[in-house]
Amino acid sequence: MLANRLCVIGLGLIGGSLLRALRAADAVQTVVGYDPDPRQGQDALELGVVDIVAADAASAVRNADLVVVAVPVLRTAEAFAAIASSLAPGCVVTDVGSTKQSVLRDVVSVFGELPPWYVPGHPIAGTEKSGVANSIEHLFRGHRVILTPHAQQSADALARVRSMWELCGARVFEMDAARHDRIFAASSHLPHMLAYSFVDMLANLDGSEEVFSNAGGGLRGFTRIASSSPQMWHDIVRANAPAVGELLARQIGELQIMQTLLEQQRWDELKTIFERARHAREHYLTQIE
Amino acid sequence: MLANRLCVIGLGLIGGSLLRALRAADAVQTVVGYDPDPRQGQDALELGVVDIVAADAASAVRNADLVVVAVPVLRTAEAFAAIASSLAPGCVVTDVGSTKQSVLRDVVSVFGELPPWYVPGHPIAGTEKSGVANSIEHLFRGHRVILTPHAQQSADALARVRSMWELCGARVFEMDAARHDRIFAASSHLPHMLAYSFVDMLANLDGSEEVFSNAGGGLRGFTRIASSSPQMWHDIVRANAPAVGELLARQIGELQIMQTLLEQQRWDELKTIFERARHAREHYLTQIE
Repeated sequence: MLANRLCVIGLGLIGGSLLRALRAADAVQTVVGYDPDPRQGQDALELGVVDIVAADAASAVRNADLVVVAVPVLRTAEAFAAIASSLAPGCVVTDVGSTKQSVLRDVVSVFGELPPWYVPGHPIAGTEKSGVANSIEHLFRGHRVILTPHAQQSADALARVRSMWELCGARVFEMDAARHDRIFAASSHLPHMLAYSFVDMLANLDGSEEVFSNAGGGLRGFTRIASSSPQMWHDIVRANAPAVGELLARQIGELQIMQTLLEQQRWDELKTIFERARHAREHYLTQIE
Repeated sequence: MLANRLCVIGLGLIGGSLLRALRAADAVQTVVGYDPDPRQGQDALELGVVDIVAADAASAVRNADLVVVAVPVLRTAEAFAAIASSLAPGCVVTDVGSTKQSVLRDVVSVFGELPPWYVPGHPIAGTEKSGVANSIEHLFRGHRVILTPHAQQSADALARVRSMWELCGARVFEMDAARHDRIFAASSHLPHMLAYSFVDMLANLDGSEEVFSNAGGGLRGFTRIASSSPQMWHDIVRANAPAVGELLARQIGELQIMQTLLEQQRWDELKTIFERARHAREHYLTQIE
């Protein structure tokens, strides 16, 4: 049994999918949930992903032996502050935040240090949809989960969180929080910025309606992530602004080179960029699809 | 019967898929194909999408009553020059080029004018794969095909090409060639440039291997079009360079605004861009998925 009393703070796509998977694995006895939005709590109860919806975060965690904080990253400090004085001795706490250095800072701001029983985590899974109603039992199956253990980390707490994700069918990896934030700025945060910016550019064109109505599958795939939650991505970009800003500057530089090649009709060099990109994508990504 | 003798110059993904669909609709008697790459001709014969593979383009079109030129856009002039003196009287010729003004210029360069029997066309369908071996019978079903009739256009020729695409299950629309090129610069050509540029930027990062190995579904979808044929997209961008260049400049401008908002911590304005983009995508695209 992973937990006798599992508490999830934040009943969204991630929290809900985690609970569906752990219930399917018969890994938890009682599940208590809390969400500031009563609608999510209601949905979670109706969908059977929680047994109890608590009235507030502090009472939700009481007597829990495992707590998962699954809130938007900018709500992390607030969530930890709300539960700090109600956590039971021996309870392990983890989170699912897409940025890790900001979450570590938030935890320190609440507890004055990084507690041994707190394990920073980030499941690499999601869809452009949000809310517990869109949660999926298999969301994490075969996906990666990154844990970024810290210097004060308890080995037992780390092992417990690792086994939670393995019960969901995920593959668990560990890395340093700063390295995590650099990697995900590139593989996730910047592409969301680019997709939002591109769709907004199209929407601002004269005749944008015709542009969208002539969209093929390529455009739909390229822009799918621009249907993601603006609030969530605002939070993530803000929490990881230095790493994202550095990459955005590089991306603008690359596009300016492309523009020069176009203006100067340096077609072979343009094709070389296309070829390098295709090669990289085929090498790294096509094989894992 | 759409054609007694249909000839397709260029046996790739588009030509092959068109032939599969027309054969399934029992709309053609004899199919003759030609491709400069003997491998494509061989595959087309083995897959049964053509009856005859001709030794050259000129003999391929002889006695055909309908000819489809399905070559990379920068090969258009060459392909029309090769068939010009072998076309039978009454034969209708169309093409599938992704840019239309460049194709019209190429046709004029060969014939000295736009012949009434030539109908410019562009099916909005494809995958990131190429070659006749990847062709799909249903590639055009439910998809749009744009025809850009010209001032000298024969109404009969136009109707014949329209019915060819309708037999494939496509929805046929007509518009002016210049408008076509502006629209597809935005909905198709620029996103390919952006995807190639982004993947190349990632591939050039220190530690790019880790970035790709931590890719989620979002990155894979966003970069899928960067697996498209570099040669084909080089051709398209080059053929439509003025329209693409103008939009690329706009896109760089939008990203520079985003960079300023990030540097100046103007988070609400950044979120407003994300919200506008999401709204536009949901409004225009999600409904047609």
